[in-house]
Amino acid sequence: MNATVNKVMAAKVDNGVNVEALLGARQALTDAPEAARFKWRATCSWVNGTHSRSTVQGFFGLGAEQSHKTAFTYDADHPEVFASEDNGSTPVEYVLVALASCLTAGVAAVAQNRSIQLRSVKATVEAGMDLQGILGIDSEVRNGFDGIKVVYDIDADASREDIAALVAQSQKRSAVFDIVTNPTDVTVTASKV
Amino acid sequence: MNATVNKVMAAKVDNGVNVEALLGARQALTDAPEAARFKWRATCSWVNGTHSRSTVQGFFGLGAEQSHKTAFTYDADHPEVFASEDNGSTPVEYVLVALASCLTAGVAAVAQNRSIQLRSVKATVEAGMDLQGILGIDSEVRNGFDGIKVVYDIDADASREDIAALVAQSQKRSAVFDIVTNPTDVTVTASKV
Repeated sequence: MNATVNKVMAAKVDNGVNVEALLGARQALTDAPEAARFKWRATCSWVNGTHSRSTVQGFFGLGAEQSHKTAFTYDADHPEVFASEDNGSTPVEYVLVALASCLTAGVAAVAQNRSIQLRSVKATVEAGMDLQGILGIDSEVRNGFDGIKVVYDIDADASREDIAALVAQSQKRSAVFDIVTNPTDVTVTASKV
Repeated sequence: MNATVNKVMAAKVDNGVNVEALLGARQALTDAPEAARFKWRATCSWVNGTHSRSTVQGFFGLGAEQSHKTAFTYDADHPEVFASEDNGSTPVEYVLVALASCLTAGVAAVAQNRSIQLRSVKATVEAGMDLQGILGIDSEVRNGFDGIKVVYDIDADASREDIAALVAQSQKRSAVFDIVTNPTDVTVTASKV
């Protein structure tokens, strides 16, 4: 396919991702790598029992303080089977939301860049966890997931092979996929107020 | 302190955590370890661009299908500085919500078990990320966080040392702390519909 045909086809594809802006950002950040250093933040306030409310609004990037258009708040809790009040998803389910949404945004962005028109994308995520870990019953059992399975069902103008390649590229560029599959240092400190 | 005094003091402490039920569950799951095998789930549907909507409701545990009282839905998106519409938190911010809410639930549960009355617990979480990773500018830069800092401010009937020990024990039993600091296998498959 020559460049002109490619361009005409690309113009017809609209997944709602502004690839030109992303490619422009990539060039800008290549020229000014300091601007690529982001700080993401959340605050979490205990409500009662295992119920907490987290807020996400400000972050740092492009060399300046930034803000979401609005503050997003999230209730987390444990379910009734753990003698809690089920006021929100469990913390581990938030990890699954993070992973699925990161991969899905990637699928849309990569599809746009490859001129693949998406019609629907759905991810189903399931993670196993043996509660003998967090309950301290068996020290050989880890606290976290014993593995995560993500299954995509994608309706798009593309072959099965192209869809598989799309999902593979999304994994390769996913921040949350990296966070879940590789270790990250976490430092926790506490002050008495 | 003898057992009776301990029991009287414990009775006065109420962080809203049913420790007796949790200890009962630990005993029950020690006796029937198969019941401790849980499956956590989420589904994620692409909306447009980098915007997706995830739903959390059902899970498996105690040998049967379980359900939250209601379906919880979460919008994720990229912010306007990435040429997106900022319809929700970014996926990586959901990871911070997961981590903070998991550690905070742990602080409440451990405090209850140690007869420490909490008055307020607030976590501030910040994670660095160099966007040269996900943008593919520098292959030496990872896609995920370069580290996470969690700072707790806790008002409680306890010494600084007891508060530090409380937070340390919460980390030790936290599912999300384990997930973030250690690797987890993720398998992603895709079907064309």
